Amino acid sequence: MAALFRGSRNLLKRWNKNVHSALVSSRSVASKTQVGFVGLGNMGNPMAKNLLKSGYPIIATDVFPESCKELQELGAQILDSPADVADKADRIITMLPSSPNVIDVYTGPNGILKKVKKGSLLIDSSTIDPSVSKEMAVAAEKMGAVFMDAPVSGGVGAASSGKLTFMVGGAEEEFTAAKELLSCMGANVVYCGQVGTGQSAKICNNMLLAIGMIGTAETMNLGIRLGLDPKLLAKILNMSSGRCWSSDTYNPVPGVMEGVPSGNNYQGGFGTTLMAKDLGLAQNTATNTKTPIPLGALAHQIYRMMCARGYAGKDFSSVFQFLREEEGQ
Amino acid sequence: MAALFRGSRNLLKRWNKNVHSALVSSRSVASKTQVGFVGLGNMGNPMAKNLLKSGYPIIATDVFPESCKELQELGAQILDSPADVADKADRIITMLPSSPNVIDVYTGPNGILKKVKKGSLLIDSSTIDPSVSKEMAVAAEKMGAVFMDAPVSGGVGAASSGKLTFMVGGAEEEFTAAKELLSCMGANVVYCGQVGTGQSAKICNNMLLAIGMIGTAETMNLGIRLGLDPKLLAKILNMSSGRCWSSDTYNPVPGVMEGVPSGNNYQGGFGTTLMAKDLGLAQNTATNTKTPIPLGALAHQIYRMMCARGYAGKDFSSVFQFLREEEGQ
Amino acid sequence: MAALFRGSRNLLKRWNKNVHSALVSSRSVASKTQVGFVGLGNMGNPMAKNLLKSGYPIIATDVFPESCKELQELGAQILDSPADVADKADRIITMLPSSPNVIDVYTGPNGILKKVKKGSLLIDSSTIDPSVSKEMAVAAEKMGAVFMDAPVSGGVGAASSGKLTFMVGGAEEEFTAAKELLSCMGANVVYCGQVGTGQSAKICNNMLLAIGMIGTAETMNLGIRLGLDPKLLAKILNMSSGRCWSSDTYNPVPGVMEGVPSGNNYQGGFGTTLMAKDLGLAQNTATNTKTPIPLGALAHQIYRMMCARGYAGKDFSSVFQFLREEEGQ
Amino acid sequence: MAALFRGSRNLLKRWNKNVHSALVSSRSVASKTQVGFVGLGNMGNPMAKNLLKSGYPIIATDVFPESCKELQELGAQILDSPADVADKADRIITMLPSSPNVIDVYTGPNGILKKVKKGSLLIDSSTIDPSVSKEMAVAAEKMGAVFMDAPVSGGVGAASSGKLTFMVGGAEEEFTAAKELLSCMGANVVYCGQVGTGQSAKICNNMLLAIGMIGTAETMNLGIRLGLDPKLLAKILNMSSGRCWSSDTYNPVPGVMEGVPSGNNYQGGFGTTLMAKDLGLAQNTATNTKTPIPLGALAHQIYRMMCARGYAGKDFSSVFQFLREEEGQ
Repeated sequence: MAALFRGSRNLLKRWNKNVHSALVSSRSVASKTQVGFVGLGNMGNPMAKNLLKSGYPIIATDVFPESCKELQELGAQILDSPADVADKADRIITMLPSSPNVIDVYTGPNGILKKVKKGSLLIDSSTIDPSVSKEMAVAAEKMGAVFMDAPVSGGVGAASSGKLTFMVGGAEEEFTAAKELLSCMGANVVYCGQVGTGQSAKICNNMLLAIGMIGTAETMNLGIRLGLDPKLLAKILNMSSGRCWSSDTYNPVPGVMEGVPSGNNYQGGFGTTLMAKDLGLAQNTATNTKTPIPLGALAHQIYRMMCARGYAGKDFSSVFQFLREEEGQ
Repeated sequence: MAALFRGSRNLLKRWNKNVHSALVSSRSVASKTQVGFVGLGNMGNPMAKNLLKSGYPIIATDVFPESCKELQELGAQILDSPADVADKADRIITMLPSSPNVIDVYTGPNGILKKVKKGSLLIDSSTIDPSVSKEMAVAAEKMGAVFMDAPVSGGVGAASSGKLTFMVGGAEEEFTAAKELLSCMGANVVYCGQVGTGQSAKICNNMLLAIGMIGTAETMNLGIRLGLDPKLLAKILNMSSGRCWSSDTYNPVPGVMEGVPSGNNYQGGFGTTLMAKDLGLAQNTATNTKTPIPLGALAHQIYRMMCARGYAGKDFSSVFQFLREEEGQ
Repeated sequence: MAALFRGSRNLLKRWNKNVHSALVSSRSVASKTQVGFVGLGNMGNPMAKNLLKSGYPIIATDVFPESCKELQELGAQILDSPADVADKADRIITMLPSSPNVIDVYTGPNGILKKVKKGSLLIDSSTIDPSVSKEMAVAAEKMGAVFMDAPVSGGVGAASSGKLTFMVGGAEEEFTAAKELLSCMGANVVYCGQVGTGQSAKICNNMLLAIGMIGTAETMNLGIRLGLDPKLLAKILNMSSGRCWSSDTYNPVPGVMEGVPSGNNYQGGFGTTLMAKDLGLAQNTATNTKTPIPLGALAHQIYRMMCARGYAGKDFSSVFQFLREEEGQ
Repeated sequence: MAALFRGSRNLLKRWNKNVHSALVSSRSVASKTQVGFVGLGNMGNPMAKNLLKSGYPIIATDVFPESCKELQELGAQILDSPADVADKADRIITMLPSSPNVIDVYTGPNGILKKVKKGSLLIDSSTIDPSVSKEMAVAAEKMGAVFMDAPVSGGVGAASSGKLTFMVGGAEEEFTAAKELLSCMGANVVYCGQVGTGQSAKICNNMLLAIGMIGTAETMNLGIRLGLDPKLLAKILNMSSGRCWSSDTYNPVPGVMEGVPSGNNYQGGFGTTLMAKDLGLAQNTATNTKTPIPLGALAHQIYRMMCARGYAGKDFSSVFQFLREEEGQ
């Protein structure tokens, strides 16, 4: 794992020696003390519930007060702002829609860092630009707090059943503390390296997922038009080198597989808008690092075109439907 | 399997009733009688050897006499032309580089159909345009012979060890007879449907394979530039929805995996030129059927650019190297 | 122009010496003798009328008898088949939808070559694969006739007003004879080189046109979303290096320009289906010559997706509408 | 032009009434008083010289002292920092490589805004993200200064000969004052709308330019492989709908045109790296505004691949060379 630290090794070493032991000693290390939670949307809500179920008292907030009702009835304490949460809890999890929200919740006028306690552990599970994660980590360190990025793989269903996968970036010394909480909400908690690498891993996975999904949709559509039975084609691909998650686990062709959105008119699942957002993040990081991603860039554009043509709310496997001939053509 | 016949069902039914029983009775059904083999290149040579090993006397030919020497020493009879082979054997396998070769070997002045016996079983394992397979089947039927397409998945290694996968198109009644021979050369023999569907399945698989490989190369490269350890990133992808054959079985990043071309300077394996050829076939069938294949088309162009830039002879996973920054940049 | 002949120079030289003088002497060289015309569709009809206006008696045919009525009323003689036309006229122009039609009209059972007179001049103005043009030229030569390809640039309007551009491929010695007829139907008649180069020039132009049109649509849409006034943006592009025919002559944004399809709900003009067809030809020639055309390939796929999504009948500049956000999104 | 102000109309109106008259009265309106210049690189140096030639005393600075020598010898006063320049001059032009440099020069610890005089006119000719221009305008307004973006079209040659085109965004009331200075350095000064629209126009133009250039390179390469003479093909395109700036003014094929980089081994001109940078800006603005740009995105990736493969320093028309078959293939 040493290779992961690279350029920031010395920085981290220094930080470790001078600051770390002091920080940890000041944090409430006794398990089952209260945990803060900011962002109670479709994902945050079931995640916070699972923390509650595991016995952690929850102090939460959300910009939409109605989002907090259910959790309040289950016993959570609801406060007015992230700053107020940070004033009471020294372990906080945030789950927000996008980079600007994260910036606001951490560094805004009522943000966490306004009242954060020294030694606090701040875990952001939003999917955002890794460079923003790094900025937040720097800002948190200035206040004596520890910031980690821990975006998730898996949707609302996995959030409800506590089966999310967390990809965690940040100081390795803090991983155990983070894992204690994240394990209540997920089945896998993977350490990825320094701050931002959790986001990077998430973004990389979703870029390859999008490419595989569009590729599977094109391939299945082409095969069907060439006279192949869709189920048979899927079977052949899945025993051959064309095999991928989109072909063997989440096939986009209606009727090939049970229990996936393609069998339910592409409802539920992972929306085209969200995939377009993640591909936008992949594109940003690729542009910033001058990395060529020809298929990733085109996948991004295809999901953008789909959003413009009425597919925004459908599962991302609806690209199969988008590519097919419209009825009556 | 009935669904596969669709539009050609009536044609096949008629054909079955009037012609089929007559044909089969006239073919040498006793196993282990001689088998013809046309095309003794890198793939055809080990395939013919495996037939020999299984006890079938081989009558072979190739445009390059030197290609025949090894097989001759092993006991095969070498003749001058495909027509001569067809004159002696009523089961013939062909393994040729591209569509024009197939057209020539079957319908040329010294082609198989000049001397083919009524009821002969002709199996073409070349990877070609499915519309050419259909043309050959029509031409063979006119001479009272049966043509099947049976392209392979797996390279020279799989050909040598008899572990190829055959994707077979043609009259379902003939599949058992074809499988008897193909099983000597492969581990999987899959019936795909009417004539041409073997090619279609092969082309579909390789298109998705190319998309998955380039996607994996882009993703691994992006992740590495974002600070992720390549082995860790591969591990994360392979337990997540980014998983595909190129990430978990044939990873293009040197050092991530043992025993794949990326660990051997991209030597061996499946050449970029061959992948470009298969993607050209996919593009042709997509254009002919007016099927949009945006990622497939771009994958084709990327392999074309690679061929133009010196990667023609390397394994197709070398796209990882192509996308990386050149040293000194 | 010598460089254009290249590999076929010797062939042409031989042909010129042995055959050419004989052929020409046998053809009706007197101007204003009858001209054959096969294919009286949207383009062929006004083209044949312009020949009539120029004083040439017309002998015509079409698979749809009703297509011939108007021309018959104007004095043209209508016959039953291309063979019949070839029996009467030794200069014939063909204007057909696609390669299979051309193959049938020339080499089919009632095709031109069944009754063609020695020395006849056969000019095909269809847009087809240049390799088919070459095949037709070889077949014509066997019958002692001369085949030239002369596809057009410009739509129905230019056909009506006699303002088409003809791109002509074939023996340079025949160009003057071809130009005599083509000048009655077009404003520009350009000699491009050996047989097939007329098609090649046409295909090349339309590929670049498609790229420029989609590029202009993307650029105008992006600029508008960034707050630029569309007319001002068009003006800036047109005085700068972004200038192209699609930005300065056929702008795809409604309201920027008068008298173009974008101002008329994308009706009229050059249909998306036809552009997709031409891009399919470009893709075929690129695949056959192993030429990378990344943007051309993607342009092809975008027009294919548009055809699948209801834009088949609209002018090809409707890509601007396809890329824009749907209302209510 | 009113339509351009849209959402910010009210903001600008308010600003105009309360602040504007006060600002202008305090600025040195007498022409030929000193002008500040920050950034004396390949472009900034000749631009500043042209201001000097027009009679404006120049006060300049650059992070590399050696860049200032030539201008100092011509009579310019060289200071240590942008802040120092702002302390002396109330009209300042900046010409910097990228967004971070602009942010630093304006808002950094020694930046212009540290000592800017009320009513100063700040004109940024760098090519950067329009959202950064907007940020700088807001920051400048807080200090009572006016910020305009005025990126240029045209390279070092146009900068030397004073033939640049400036695309200007900002308060329309200030355009006359800006034009007075910019006219000394350019042949065209175009008002585009509110702050950031100069950048937007520049980015839009360069995106369409890149698409047109790659499209021209693909088309010329395809035509040549199909047997067309390159000069003839260029001539045909330029009289047809394929015409664009890259085909008729800056043709990428060596030998087609005089006086362009393709005739000089792709030296000079507009480097591939710079084009890749501008396409990255186009991609960022498209991603932020959720605008699909399929060809623009692919053009970006192609220039990225070229940078990775050794073309970083060549003119952007070298894409023709990149797409061609390497010798010996």
